[in-house]
Amino acid sequence: MLDRLRSLIGAENVLTGADMAPWCREWTGHYRWTPLAVARPANTAEVAAILRLAGETGTKVVPVGGNTGLNGGTYAEGALMLSLARMNRIREIRPAARVAVVEAGLILEAMHAAAAEHGLAFPLTFGAKGSATIGGVISTNAGGSNVLRYGTTRALVLGVEVVLADGQVMDLMGALHKDNTGYSLRDLVIGAEGTLGIITAAVLKLVPAPRAYATATLALSSLDGALALLNRLQAETGGAVEAYEFMPAAYMARLARHRPDLRQPFGEIHPVTVLVEVGATAPRDATPGPMAPCRS
Amino acid sequence: MLDRLRSLIGAENVLTGADMAPWCREWTGHYRWTPLAVARPANTAEVAAILRLAGETGTKVVPVGGNTGLNGGTYAEGALMLSLARMNRIREIRPAARVAVVEAGLILEAMHAAAAEHGLAFPLTFGAKGSATIGGVISTNAGGSNVLRYGTTRALVLGVEVVLADGQVMDLMGALHKDNTGYSLRDLVIGAEGTLGIITAAVLKLVPAPRAYATATLALSSLDGALALLNRLQAETGGAVEAYEFMPAAYMARLARHRPDLRQPFGEIHPVTVLVEVGATAPRDATPGPMAPCRS
Ligand SMILES: Cc1cc2nc3c(=O)[nH]c(=O)nc-3n(C[C@H](O)[C@H](O)[C@H](O)COP(=O)(O)OP(=O)(O)OC[C@H]3O[C@@H](n4cnc5c(N)ncnc54)[C@H](O)[C@@H]3O)c2cc1C
Ligand SMILES: Cc1cc2nc3c(=O)[nH]c(=O)nc-3n(C[C@H](O)[C@H](O)[C@H](O)COP(=O)(O)OP(=O)(O)OC[C@H]3O[C@@H](n4cnc5c(N)ncnc54)[C@H](O)[C@@H]3O)c2cc1C
Repeated sequence: MLDRLRSLIGAENVLTGADMAPWCREWTGHYRWTPLAVARPANTAEVAAILRLAGETGTKVVPVGGNTGLNGGTYAEGALMLSLARMNRIREIRPAARVAVVEAGLILEAMHAAAAEHGLAFPLTFGAKGSATIGGVISTNAGGSNVLRYGTTRALVLGVEVVLADGQVMDLMGALHKDNTGYSLRDLVIGAEGTLGIITAAVLKLVPAPRAYATATLALSSLDGALALLNRLQAETGGAVEAYEFMPAAYMARLARHRPDLRQPFGEIHPVTVLVEVGATAPRDATPGPMAPCRS
Repeated sequence: MLDRLRSLIGAENVLTGADMAPWCREWTGHYRWTPLAVARPANTAEVAAILRLAGETGTKVVPVGGNTGLNGGTYAEGALMLSLARMNRIREIRPAARVAVVEAGLILEAMHAAAAEHGLAFPLTFGAKGSATIGGVISTNAGGSNVLRYGTTRALVLGVEVVLADGQVMDLMGALHKDNTGYSLRDLVIGAEGTLGIITAAVLKLVPAPRAYATATLALSSLDGALALLNRLQAETGGAVEAYEFMPAAYMARLARHRPDLRQPFGEIHPVTVLVEVGATAPRDATPGPMAPCRS
């Protein structure tokens, strides 16, 4: 099996033994395993060939992107790990249509940078953006801090290319915002954690990049009050609230215990602390000016 | 079969013969058919009982909402039509969470009205809103004029309740914006045209109702120019463009031929005519004031 794999994708792209170390655990150490090998295909055809070989030889396959999922999704004891790391090309960016066509191994942060070159943004973002891949965020339907404004990954994916277990390539790379042909197999694949096939490419939605941000930490006396404030902020800004992260008192207390060097933002701990960020795309909202009083 | 059906849901809710007239065609007349009967269940349990009976007796079932789909989706020669018309209750509106829980037979326009009572909107809208139902818009993943800002129906549905062919009730009524448990069966049902089951209820997203609209008809010399203008309008308004309807020269010429009484908006016909609508939710955008010059 490994010899056939080496002849399919090149010996240098089949890692075994100590070379597999980064793929033998999640970084928390909570899950550990020993894969059969790690295969690093260069393109969709190689992914298909690997899956056909795996089918013939009864080899289990586990796809892996940035390995940042942290809940055992990449656990691969005795299985062949299929790393998309080499498939990280941006095939095309169409700024007028606000669409990017990319390979699944592309790192999320690289997608951010490429969109920014066109004054656009791929608004999905979270702590692991420097390692997580497009294939990984699609397979986990990742959220992050901007779900409020832009939705989860599902809302940002127009199309996917998927290699099925038997090596068939399913081309669902439509870039239409309204594509109602047949069942939405795309949406079945999104969030499927790699159980239905290997995602090799995707068509992503881009949005105008905010020109300025306003960020604040707020203290409130109740969760109901925080929700009312969120609704008001969303209406007043025309839906420009990007992030609204809720931190309960227990969280702030824990922070105080573990990191006494960090100052509590309001001295004492309040029932609800919120971190809010508003992003302005309109030039008039991005220039400093007098602010209307917010208390009423 | 019909006798058993009558005893399940009441004889007055089983229509046959001339009483079925409104359900024997689409209003264009392009499709015509004669159903076995039209059943009008009162609740999810009755829908389940009807499907079990249909399964036992080998009766085909075709669900129908407002019958406005216009492409043969409700064609039901010899089949039992299952009308959701009586299942039109609004179970609950939670304004703070911006969520509505409704039955599938609710008319779209009634959903609009109910949301408006809370200063909110269900932003899906199109010509047939006075007849189309929530079950119908979900089953066709309807679009309409506001897709640009709010997405198609798919983007506005958080949860569905579906009765499967064997009478099982599948409860996918989660109201979470990020619900990643298992495969997204909800998204498989959306747009499935009734082939996977009968939608009996749904959890819908509401949005802040715009306080004011600006509507304009524009003439442009090219489609590329129209796309560039759209992108600019979206950025400048912070994403408040609700509708941007493109009418090619051929469309305007046809209009002139068929309705000589209607004036061409710009006297002569231009290569591209666009109808644009911007909706403002922020109070400061809803008050008349000086406008920045738009030409640059
Ligand atoms: C610091 C940190 C912060 C995070 N914050 C968030 C957050 O705010 N919101 C959130 O939702 N998640 C968050 N995560 C977890 C998040 O799910 C992952 O970071 C990311 O989506 C996974 O991408 P990945 O490329 O690392 O995938 P991996 O971890 O490599 O894989 C995840 C799953 O997807 C499968 N998979 C990977 N690539 C493919 C492919 N090409 N085709 C098919 N299946 C594939 C794997 O088999 C596995 O089941 C965070 C993680 C970290 C470490
Ligand atoms: C004037 C006009 C303008 C329109 N404009 C648009 C537009 O801009 N955009 C757009 O997308 N569409 C448009 N449509 C078509 C649109 O698809 C339908 O109006 C609407 O979505 C269908 O709703 P309905 O309740 O009438 O469904 P029906 O026509 O009754 O049924 C449509 C399909 O869904 C199935 N179905 C109905 N109810 C259920 C249920 N509860 N469970 C499972 N399956 C069900 C039916 O079997 C059928 O296959 C327009 C139609 C008209 C007449």
